[in-house]
Amino acid sequence: MSKLVRFGVSIDSMLIEKFDGSIARKGYNNRSEAIRDMIRKSLVEEEWEEGRGETVGTITLVYDHHTRELESHLTELQHKCIKLVVSSLHVHLDEHNCLEVLVVKGNSREIKTIADGLIGTRGVKHGKLTMTTTGKNLV
Amino acid sequence: MSKLVRFGVSIDSMLIEKFDGSIARKGYNNRSEAIRDMIRKSLVEEEWEEGRGETVGTITLVYDHHTRELESHLTELQHKCIKLVVSSLHVHLDEHNCLEVLVVKGNSREIKTIADGLIGTRGVKHGKLTMTTTGKNLV
Amino acid sequence: MSKLVRFGVSIDSMLIEKFDGSIARKGYNNRSEAIRDMIRKSLVEEEWEEGRGETVGTITLVYDHHTRELESHLTELQHKCIKLVVSSLHVHLDEHNCLEVLVVKGNSREIKTIADGLIGTRGVKHGKLTMTTTGKNLV
Amino acid sequence: MSKLVRFGVSIDSMLIEKFDGSIARKGYNNRSEAIRDMIRKSLVEEEWEEGRGETVGTITLVYDHHTRELESHLTELQHKCIKLVVSSLHVHLDEHNCLEVLVVKGNSREIKTIADGLIGTRGVKHGKLTMTTTGKNLV
Repeated sequence: MSKLVRFGVSIDSMLIEKFDGSIARKGYNNRSEAIRDMIRKSLVEEEWEEGRGETVGTITLVYDHHTRELESHLTELQHKCIKLVVSSLHVHLDEHNCLEVLVVKGNSREIKTIADGLIGTRGVKHGKLTMTTTGKNLV
Repeated sequence: MSKLVRFGVSIDSMLIEKFDGSIARKGYNNRSEAIRDMIRKSLVEEEWEEGRGETVGTITLVYDHHTRELESHLTELQHKCIKLVVSSLHVHLDEHNCLEVLVVKGNSREIKTIADGLIGTRGVKHGKLTMTTTGKNLV
Repeated sequence: MSKLVRFGVSIDSMLIEKFDGSIARKGYNNRSEAIRDMIRKSLVEEEWEEGRGETVGTITLVYDHHTRELESHLTELQHKCIKLVVSSLHVHLDEHNCLEVLVVKGNSREIKTIADGLIGTRGVKHGKLTMTTTGKNLV
Repeated sequence: MSKLVRFGVSIDSMLIEKFDGSIARKGYNNRSEAIRDMIRKSLVEEEWEEGRGETVGTITLVYDHHTRELESHLTELQHKCIKLVVSSLHVHLDEHNCLEVLVVKGNSREIKTIADGLIGTRGVKHGKLTMTTTGKNLV
């Protein structure tokens, strides 16, 4: 079982002073939380680099819904990968532009492939894959 | 009014061959679409670097919803920036872990500040700001 | 043998106008060169992601040369990887701080390992691996 | 004057275990050094984002030295910014390809402008700006 432990960090007084200023600007209340966040961030990066195990990402797409057959094409692509796409959110940015965010879960290589396919679809103006985590092993 | 135009690119035959292979692996059907995507991507990056005008982003958060008062705290933070947060999507990853994606619209500096605040909240295991676009000036 | 070819890109007039403004700000004289640069950049990224074949990088280190035994330790590490390190440049930034740039050539995984080792050395204040290319297949 | 201090970090036992594995793979001998490195890295990123004060970078260029007038053109560009370019290293990668690394020091906006100019020069196959630090305020 997991439990809370404590460890010490030795550091130059000038460096910790600069760090305190930086995390205050980012809205942190204490150093421990800021350092745990840096630790988790580096673990998530390593997880995606190594590409093993199940992970989670979001795919963000901006497109003009007037583009002929674009929506049906995107839907079709998502259904081909039905096991990866967990959920999606659609936002009407203006009369023409839509933003769609898909939450995807699976192997990182598979996620990258479906993201490439969606982002490369004609009519998608901007697309991006954001790599995050299942949270399972990150207490 | 905008209309379709055509321009020529002179390129070494070996380089275009390698490019054709690369975009095929990414699922593109033709070079024009791949090149338009690269152009739009670089314009979106420039827009965020310069930080002027209205833009759009998504903030992805993974957290354990059992963390005491985390959800109410995140909700409160979002309500303080009610003008920025357009919409949000919540996914139950497992018994403990949730993923939340917020769509935010506004000035890029303001978006960065709210993202820092949310990502730095105690109990958020991983958070990321994804910079995209209103799509307005990107035909 | 490689030779110069030409292909056409169809694009919306508003999009190419914005692109022309952007590349002018970056100092490009013509679109073809800007587009070739984007193509080569994406090929170099793909090369590093896939991690096969020989590639080239630079490792940038900033450190205080007064740190006890740091220089000899860095030298030792470099000699262990003598086949990877092609050359290095040393700059005295001020009385205390040095910047060292190593040019490394080899498999991308091996390059990442030596970079991790050098950047993680006690006394190195900041370090970074920059991924570039042998240029061989990039006309 | 700066002196060594010590502070405690409270953390879940499972998270620190995963972190210990990760830093061991990266060649760190102790947690304090790994955490100081993460702190310094985030401070350098903030410094470049805000763009004030003097900073240091390296510009990496790969090019074919047979390209007509390229070398003289690159040299000319560097001399126009003689106050920024501290030093440079030239490596012959093969019969055709050269790698050049410039160490630049100055305001981050000025450094970005000269980097754009050099990277955008016709004949430069790949170029990149690496943002590092003077080391002055990073103990």
